[in-house]
Amino acid sequence: MTAREPEVLISEVGPRDGLQSVRAVMATPDKFAWITALHAAGIREIEVASFVPAKLLPQMADAAEVVRHALALPGWTVMALVPNLRGAQAALAAGVRKITIPVSASEAHSLANVRKTREEMVEEVRTIVRLRDGAAPDVLVEAGLSTAFGCTLQGDVKEDDVVWLAAQVAAAGVDECGLSDTTGMANPAQVRRLFQRVRAEIGEKTGAAHMHNTRGLGLANCLAAYDVGVRTFDASLGGLGGCPYAPGASGNVVTEDLVFMFEAMGVHTGIDLENLMAARAPLQAGLPGEPVYGMTPEAGLPKGFVQGHAHA
Amino acid sequence: MTAREPEVLISEVGPRDGLQSVRAVMATPDKFAWITALHAAGIREIEVASFVPAKLLPQMADAAEVVRHALALPGWTVMALVPNLRGAQAALAAGVRKITIPVSASEAHSLANVRKTREEMVEEVRTIVRLRDGAAPDVLVEAGLSTAFGCTLQGDVKEDDVVWLAAQVAAAGVDECGLSDTTGMANPAQVRRLFQRVRAEIGEKTGAAHMHNTRGLGLANCLAAYDVGVRTFDASLGGLGGCPYAPGASGNVVTEDLVFMFEAMGVHTGIDLENLMAARAPLQAGLPGEPVYGMTPEAGLPKGFVQGHAHA
Repeated sequence: MTAREPEVLISEVGPRDGLQSVRAVMATPDKFAWITALHAAGIREIEVASFVPAKLLPQMADAAEVVRHALALPGWTVMALVPNLRGAQAALAAGVRKITIPVSASEAHSLANVRKTREEMVEEVRTIVRLRDGAAPDVLVEAGLSTAFGCTLQGDVKEDDVVWLAAQVAAAGVDECGLSDTTGMANPAQVRRLFQRVRAEIGEKTGAAHMHNTRGLGLANCLAAYDVGVRTFDASLGGLGGCPYAPGASGNVVTEDLVFMFEAMGVHTGIDLENLMAARAPLQAGLPGEPVYGMTPEAGLPKGFVQGHAHA
Repeated sequence: MTAREPEVLISEVGPRDGLQSVRAVMATPDKFAWITALHAAGIREIEVASFVPAKLLPQMADAAEVVRHALALPGWTVMALVPNLRGAQAALAAGVRKITIPVSASEAHSLANVRKTREEMVEEVRTIVRLRDGAAPDVLVEAGLSTAFGCTLQGDVKEDDVVWLAAQVAAAGVDECGLSDTTGMANPAQVRRLFQRVRAEIGEKTGAAHMHNTRGLGLANCLAAYDVGVRTFDASLGGLGGCPYAPGASGNVVTEDLVFMFEAMGVHTGIDLENLMAARAPLQAGLPGEPVYGMTPEAGLPKGFVQGHAHA
């Protein structure tokens, strides 16, 4: 590790997106150990929980406790997902520093997922921003536009719809608007086009690329986003939350592979790859029998690989 | 499928690179069936065999027969790998239309693999070109620079060495010089830099990108090569020839995933994805128990996916 400033922000979503997608419930002390290991690897932003009713997602029943544990570790941004105002109230009460709200770009997905139209979700975002403005003005609010690259319910999603929705949530007051390939349908040309269009519309509020590896294009899509100026990337340690290499699954980009790609390119992530791979042990200990993925951990780092300089 | 001209050439290497990397020997009639299915999918260039002593590679004992079968199918280029002059003589006698010669960019790899220095291999290439010029002047000769992006024996391979070697084989008379990530160590920044440097040195003789998926970067590296003007890509159906997703393995880029990426981007390959996936059946029938890979075949094509137009 060098003293160089990181050039990209890898936002670890495993403890939220990963855990809520597996059947098993990880015990709270195991979550603590895993999150501590991710911190030790140099992760600087982490989505640790969803604030949703425990009867819907028992994996997230300890959300407030987990947030408190993460907040005790210095130098990173502790995030949580909230689907609505009630979740935002709970997240702010727990002390999160950043809230992310999923907003479907596909009307069919929005209705199926939260029983709200997209306009109604934008209104919910506006209400959450108002709450934040009053209660905790230094907390960041992000909207993550899900199904931005395609939808398993309606098929193609119009780019015009995504750009329109980005403008809507920006006007509603979010600090960042990311684009999510929820269904693993994105391709690199589309990623470049859509991020450029969104940036032209909402400028510096353009946020993270949240890519899935459903058809093997996860890293190529992250590269494409990087090429057009995206500097924040969501990823999940061990690809937790849906096998990224299996039938119909929609696994997140594997953090280890994404960090390896950037570091090999000479793009500094601030993350230590050896320590990152070591964070797989507490994940596996806390979820016995749950498969974890990642080609870089399996192949090992290349001979002669030195982190922090371009290869070579 | 439209009448549009293909914009990239996918060079299928499974029957050579794939088969020679598995323990089992595929029966000759099974090879025929598989190759016929690949032809039916619209593959326009195929590496069907290695011309090496049968005692070294029993999988390739039927090379001449396989070449004859492939030559009977119209409209594609039938290639074979040859490591030396003797192999080239046999390949030309069998009637191949294109020869590919592996030349290591790493001196350590060259000595270990063919017991020749790089200079001695360049001399071998020159001799093969002379043979071709006399015996079959319309047959193409390609040099594939292996370990161009790194070597498991010596670690980093100097870019200057690769550029120098490309110039040497170009001067020796090859028609094309490709770059191979034999060891799965390439990264996208390096791929862009090195292909641009090689093109500056040898111009239109710059050939294929032969990428492996060892650390999950195969498609990102192909995208990077495409971005700097590469238009020929080697790939292996089902990732045959080393699990592309397993410990220490060095699997080829999966043809199905690569074709899906390009077609989703609106880059025409001339290959029908449904027929390509159907070509997995004769491969599996001919190699029972051998794992085949590919995330696009496992996930299926996305809802609403129409080949031949950009998504969307």
